[in-house]
Amino acid sequence: MRFSQLLLGLIVLAGNPLLAQGPYDQAFNPDVPAPDGFRTNRTSYSAIMDVLAAERPQVSEEQLDQLRDVPLEVIFSAIGDYRLNYVTGFATTRPGERLVGRALTMRFLPARPDLVRAANVLAAEGNWDRRYYARAAEEAQPGDVVVAELGGSDGHNLFGDMGAIGIKLRGANGVVVDGGMRDLTGLQDDRFAGFPVLHRFTDPHTTLWLGVEYNAPVKIGGVTVLPGDIVVGDEGGVFFFPPDLLEPVLEYAAETEAREAFQLQQLENKQYRFRDIYPLSPELQQEFERTQR
Amino acid sequence: MRFSQLLLGLIVLAGNPLLAQGPYDQAFNPDVPAPDGFRTNRTSYSAIMDVLAAERPQVSEEQLDQLRDVPLEVIFSAIGDYRLNYVTGFATTRPGERLVGRALTMRFLPARPDLVRAANVLAAEGNWDRRYYARAAEEAQPGDVVVAELGGSDGHNLFGDMGAIGIKLRGANGVVVDGGMRDLTGLQDDRFAGFPVLHRFTDPHTTLWLGVEYNAPVKIGGVTVLPGDIVVGDEGGVFFFPPDLLEPVLEYAAETEAREAFQLQQLENKQYRFRDIYPLSPELQQEFERTQR
Amino acid sequence: MRFSQLLLGLIVLAGNPLLAQGPYDQAFNPDVPAPDGFRTNRTSYSAIMDVLAAERPQVSEEQLDQLRDVPLEVIFSAIGDYRLNYVTGFATTRPGERLVGRALTMRFLPARPDLVRAANVLAAEGNWDRRYYARAAEEAQPGDVVVAELGGSDGHNLFGDMGAIGIKLRGANGVVVDGGMRDLTGLQDDRFAGFPVLHRFTDPHTTLWLGVEYNAPVKIGGVTVLPGDIVVGDEGGVFFFPPDLLEPVLEYAAETEAREAFQLQQLENKQYRFRDIYPLSPELQQEFERTQR
Amino acid sequence: MRFSQLLLGLIVLAGNPLLAQGPYDQAFNPDVPAPDGFRTNRTSYSAIMDVLAAERPQVSEEQLDQLRDVPLEVIFSAIGDYRLNYVTGFATTRPGERLVGRALTMRFLPARPDLVRAANVLAAEGNWDRRYYARAAEEAQPGDVVVAELGGSDGHNLFGDMGAIGIKLRGANGVVVDGGMRDLTGLQDDRFAGFPVLHRFTDPHTTLWLGVEYNAPVKIGGVTVLPGDIVVGDEGGVFFFPPDLLEPVLEYAAETEAREAFQLQQLENKQYRFRDIYPLSPELQQEFERTQR
Amino acid sequence: MRFSQLLLGLIVLAGNPLLAQGPYDQAFNPDVPAPDGFRTNRTSYSAIMDVLAAERPQVSEEQLDQLRDVPLEVIFSAIGDYRLNYVTGFATTRPGERLVGRALTMRFLPARPDLVRAANVLAAEGNWDRRYYARAAEEAQPGDVVVAELGGSDGHNLFGDMGAIGIKLRGANGVVVDGGMRDLTGLQDDRFAGFPVLHRFTDPHTTLWLGVEYNAPVKIGGVTVLPGDIVVGDEGGVFFFPPDLLEPVLEYAAETEAREAFQLQQLENKQYRFRDIYPLSPELQQEFERTQR
Amino acid sequence: MRFSQLLLGLIVLAGNPLLAQGPYDQAFNPDVPAPDGFRTNRTSYSAIMDVLAAERPQVSEEQLDQLRDVPLEVIFSAIGDYRLNYVTGFATTRPGERLVGRALTMRFLPARPDLVRAANVLAAEGNWDRRYYARAAEEAQPGDVVVAELGGSDGHNLFGDMGAIGIKLRGANGVVVDGGMRDLTGLQDDRFAGFPVLHRFTDPHTTLWLGVEYNAPVKIGGVTVLPGDIVVGDEGGVFFFPPDLLEPVLEYAAETEAREAFQLQQLENKQYRFRDIYPLSPELQQEFERTQR
Repeated sequence: MRFSQLLLGLIVLAGNPLLAQGPYDQAFNPDVPAPDGFRTNRTSYSAIMDVLAAERPQVSEEQLDQLRDVPLEVIFSAIGDYRLNYVTGFATTRPGERLVGRALTMRFLPARPDLVRAANVLAAEGNWDRRYYARAAEEAQPGDVVVAELGGSDGHNLFGDMGAIGIKLRGANGVVVDGGMRDLTGLQDDRFAGFPVLHRFTDPHTTLWLGVEYNAPVKIGGVTVLPGDIVVGDEGGVFFFPPDLLEPVLEYAAETEAREAFQLQQLENKQYRFRDIYPLSPELQQEFERTQR
Repeated sequence: MRFSQLLLGLIVLAGNPLLAQGPYDQAFNPDVPAPDGFRTNRTSYSAIMDVLAAERPQVSEEQLDQLRDVPLEVIFSAIGDYRLNYVTGFATTRPGERLVGRALTMRFLPARPDLVRAANVLAAEGNWDRRYYARAAEEAQPGDVVVAELGGSDGHNLFGDMGAIGIKLRGANGVVVDGGMRDLTGLQDDRFAGFPVLHRFTDPHTTLWLGVEYNAPVKIGGVTVLPGDIVVGDEGGVFFFPPDLLEPVLEYAAETEAREAFQLQQLENKQYRFRDIYPLSPELQQEFERTQR
Repeated sequence: MRFSQLLLGLIVLAGNPLLAQGPYDQAFNPDVPAPDGFRTNRTSYSAIMDVLAAERPQVSEEQLDQLRDVPLEVIFSAIGDYRLNYVTGFATTRPGERLVGRALTMRFLPARPDLVRAANVLAAEGNWDRRYYARAAEEAQPGDVVVAELGGSDGHNLFGDMGAIGIKLRGANGVVVDGGMRDLTGLQDDRFAGFPVLHRFTDPHTTLWLGVEYNAPVKIGGVTVLPGDIVVGDEGGVFFFPPDLLEPVLEYAAETEAREAFQLQQLENKQYRFRDIYPLSPELQQEFERTQR
Repeated sequence: MRFSQLLLGLIVLAGNPLLAQGPYDQAFNPDVPAPDGFRTNRTSYSAIMDVLAAERPQVSEEQLDQLRDVPLEVIFSAIGDYRLNYVTGFATTRPGERLVGRALTMRFLPARPDLVRAANVLAAEGNWDRRYYARAAEEAQPGDVVVAELGGSDGHNLFGDMGAIGIKLRGANGVVVDGGMRDLTGLQDDRFAGFPVLHRFTDPHTTLWLGVEYNAPVKIGGVTVLPGDIVVGDEGGVFFFPPDLLEPVLEYAAETEAREAFQLQQLENKQYRFRDIYPLSPELQQEFERTQR
Repeated sequence: MRFSQLLLGLIVLAGNPLLAQGPYDQAFNPDVPAPDGFRTNRTSYSAIMDVLAAERPQVSEEQLDQLRDVPLEVIFSAIGDYRLNYVTGFATTRPGERLVGRALTMRFLPARPDLVRAANVLAAEGNWDRRYYARAAEEAQPGDVVVAELGGSDGHNLFGDMGAIGIKLRGANGVVVDGGMRDLTGLQDDRFAGFPVLHRFTDPHTTLWLGVEYNAPVKIGGVTVLPGDIVVGDEGGVFFFPPDLLEPVLEYAAETEAREAFQLQQLENKQYRFRDIYPLSPELQQEFERTQR
Repeated sequence: MRFSQLLLGLIVLAGNPLLAQGPYDQAFNPDVPAPDGFRTNRTSYSAIMDVLAAERPQVSEEQLDQLRDVPLEVIFSAIGDYRLNYVTGFATTRPGERLVGRALTMRFLPARPDLVRAANVLAAEGNWDRRYYARAAEEAQPGDVVVAELGGSDGHNLFGDMGAIGIKLRGANGVVVDGGMRDLTGLQDDRFAGFPVLHRFTDPHTTLWLGVEYNAPVKIGGVTVLPGDIVVGDEGGVFFFPPDLLEPVLEYAAETEAREAFQLQQLENKQYRFRDIYPLSPELQQEFERTQR
């Protein structure tokens, strides 16, 4: 309920122009059956992603590297309606390390006997490991960040240090788990430099929940994360936004950095009132722009 | 993490006999594409349900009616490993009314601009209303219970009294929303007798989260609910279990009811020690069995 | 942080056109001293209310009575940017009774020895009782609702049944205390019909916090309440809005009631799809308007 | 309700000797009007402070410096009835740095449209910035500690690094915000050495709540803070007490330090039982006093 | 930490006059061994109760009946330093029913294999049922209230309706369980009139924690309950105090009832100011005393 | 309720073969009286420990030292049904330091006047200090870990730095307090290297609760700790298990360390799939076993 308020204006009015009035007893088209082998696709099927896939560009390693130094407050100001797509409350295994990459998402559900049977069948047919962290240790790509919906603070563990080393060896940049992990001491080892794991809790138990969707939309904290989203953050909080916003963010960041440096210098000069500098008064704005030429 | 502990023994040992040792760089089959129209199937595609569908029988109205009077504690004792598939912490619009039916599930995600666009596209193509409660008001069947994953206590509203009356008019038995609702006063009206709505909170806001899967697996509290599950409970708590367990539950309930009546009578007789009656000592068990012939 | 998001667009851009650039070391005007007797004014001084007083009209008993039957969801839709000025989480002494009236506000602070001394001095000079509930039992007007900022769930008690009867005898309509009360059993007595007390908790302790402002702005839950605000709600939640909005709310309510009755009738007719009725399709909207002439 | 228990004995009996019995329908003096310009006094008017101002002495920088090394537990023992005027649960931007100074208080309220209008009017008339952190960046004095009531964990942000540098440049010693802040990374920079910000949470949003009282009594956690109070603490907890207690605290601290050093030495000697040393037995007390001559 | 503040003055100064200074390496007396059969005493051994037993009188059924109608706020005022021995936060099976009686206490601990073995040994040797609720169903006396320390909101279930009927049939007045229970629906049945069960939560699980002390001191909420304490309360809160205070409480209640009736009459007369009536001014106090002769 | 689920199977079936059917009105043996001096035994009497004492061996310093380096996850896998005897949520005074030792337990109860009197009587008769931390500072043995049940997050303080130094000087290894402590800054001093104190909170208050059992069973978090249990953990969590399990744990740890080193090496070789290495495929298991000869 909380963070979505700002979206109200944008969304509610969108309307649905094509709906014509119809009868109470409607006849609907029958469901289209799934083709053979479809159920063991490596990327789980999502109707939402089927619609959105076309509008989501690939981003480069260079772009991700540039993002690594942009303050979160600058990103906040640059991503428009996605600025509420922000999640807090994580602990990290690497204090002070920024996590940047592309979301490789996983959705987990609590175990029950029939769900376990089904997950075993799919794993056998699809030639993957039922443990989704083990799948990531075999399938993740460089620059990926594993993003796992796992029940939050009331949830379950994703993995321990052995699973983490497997994922890191594939070139992934880290993990955001809305749930727990084990082997905290192991994951704080220098071996894991550059591979922060943001998590809700740690405990020594093994994983029981079951991965049911791989690279499909998930809920992390109170926001939606789509596969391929840009992930950027640290233990203070994490933003998730669509890849087409990455370039505008980088441009905005360059401009902001220059202006804030100018403002800081003005503050230290103690010549003008605070309110004339932050934000810049028209006169100081002009002076700033002169310095930028 | 909590309730699943009992399942450990059952699950962990299941093993995976067919995995043979393979190379680090594996070649995987390419994904099978979705056929035309597939993305607007009325029942959202779930690989899990694709596997399980065959083993889930239809249950009759008569069976559901019988279940209505079985105490939750008796169900607890009769459903084996599903006895942890139980969720508490709901408020109800109809105190004291039991909710019984088949799960019609919905999964919601927090809004973001691209998700809204995609949901609009799918609604237009599939001829449904983007608001999933409105879909249920057009598509629900008699005996259905709407079961909505909607963010829990930190989530959003499902509907208000207008949506609820729409769903009730289709013959549905009620709603379990792991999230909120509005129009509490309206939903307490006699018009809604026999249609309890179990919910986490009420507030006057309109719905913003988006339905992304319809009749696919969802998480409610700390358990998994599958479409077609038997739903039974009240504000004290709700059980969700597979339809093939309904018949055994009803048989067990009949036997338990008789035994507890016998035990109560023995207690009031004040002839034997409490521990001889609850549970029945061998002698009293024999006596009980005589009364049952 | 939560509920105010919607206000962002409205507020942030307001700007402050008269600020010209100034020097770091500013010279400010000296403070204007308070005149004799000023500190014991019955209405505590608030610079904010000094500005706003002129724009806040008196409302009549008839208007308040009409508001008594308007559903909270209708008020939500009618009060624009104040629809987030809504507070939940209260218990009530009169379940099912609606509370409506004008806010008589009180701000309390935790006790410390110097604060106690000062409160005693002011009470003696001002001829009031240091206990603010006792002040209300001597000064409240018909139609008033006492609205007390008292620390929320971590706060303190406002009063017990004796204070409540004193306030009720003055014609007040009830109390909203963001804090606690004692004598729950007494306050549930029929004597208190028509005088609901919405509160966060009950316990048997006597009051220790000190009233420091009387009829000045207060914080209740996550919103601001100004003296003279319209108060309307029940244990499900309470709205607080400025008195100039009362007339528009009543007009909107009349229109909505008619439309919802029409929609309900259409739903029960089972002639059209849910989405054609809620909201009304253009055709049904025309038909509705015909019925209203 | 919690921390004030100890005060009960001190407060409740204070009585109010001058109240004579009076009639139900009392005639009260009319309110004294506020003089022109009064509403934009830089220090907001508080009747409580009007009474107390005379008894609150100025403290020197030297006194504050001495306080910097006194353990919190010693302060606890030295401030009598103020020992419950203690607040915990803050995070800090400067782990291990002690915060000491004089309280410059600010009270914030959640935004609503009329409140925004009023705050804008006052800021324009009073020649200050509506953002209270910007006011502090123009008006704070050396040794000040900004103490902001801002809704606690459910509240809002006070400022970011630009506001903080503005306040620090005026010589202030730090900030206690019962609410949030942004730019955590920036505020952990060495630039901010000697300027800890104690806060409840961090997030990237900009400030929306409105400052309504400047240098008037506020509530922080469960205690009252008055402008000019001595502030001393760190992330473990903060004490707030009146300036006239500072000298007695420093004297008590000197004595305690000597005694605890003596006790520690005795413990390490392993000659006497623990209970003879802590507290000192009469014999050891005499020995200690000899060492102090 | 919370409720005990008031006790500070009473307790801390008590001193310990007999301690003489002693050497670091003390020689202590060896432990006295437990006699045969001692470990299966029906009342578990407590050194604290060994000291206190002599000062705890028996109370009569008549006294308990009189207490049934005394408001909790009156008890609060009459029990001196025990007024903080008050616990809130319970749900009840019998809304509005007062629970009054003598504490029959039970302490439970979470299960672990060795603890289970030991509890089985003791139950076998002592001829009782390992389930402590079953013990109470065989050993409770008329007027008893079972008071069970069972982990609070994070704890476990005490019993279900069968155990409750067993305890009720022995004449017990009800139960306070700082933990959970099952069979809520059953316990709301009319069969249980006059037998309220105050509890923290309900759920359908069976009991796993183990009773380890029977009729020994326990912790309920944040207070200590001793076996034989007077228990009085309802879902609003429960007081526990020593039996020697019962008579003074009843005397104080009689006086208070008369005075409050007089005050209420005075308030309704609308002749005097609220503060002259509550508390009574000297003149009205005299008038009241005249009415009491 | 939570962690004990796994124990269900083990416990519930244990049965109680000796119970024969008996009459409602049973005659019980009278209680065996406590011998003189019994109530001031240094180890408080517990019927449970009376049964279990024989099966609890002494462990050596060498064994405890070896345990210091075993990862918690390995201990988890090695202690069978005790793997749920694990408690999280502590803060530590020595981040990164492992705490290992034998439990010296203490049970505290909230103060009330009669309890204070009794505790004073027992302390005087037994020649100990009523403050149990002071008892530990006179009676603890090398390798002990003080484990105090003190109300958890809602509880009270155990001690401050002076009490801690007293306990450390006796050779104890540290403290686990399910409650609070004071003097955080002091306890972080290098003086306390090798003496971590795991605690729930810190605050400056002195202790008010009373020690009522010394070296008897206690509840820490949601588990039972018996005197003499092995304690091992850090701020991430703490295991408590019976001393007879220590040797099997050490053996299991040695084997696991070797296997994980082998697995890590295999992962880094990037020759096989993750799932073939973790767990080891039959082929790799054979290879591993060859390396171990």
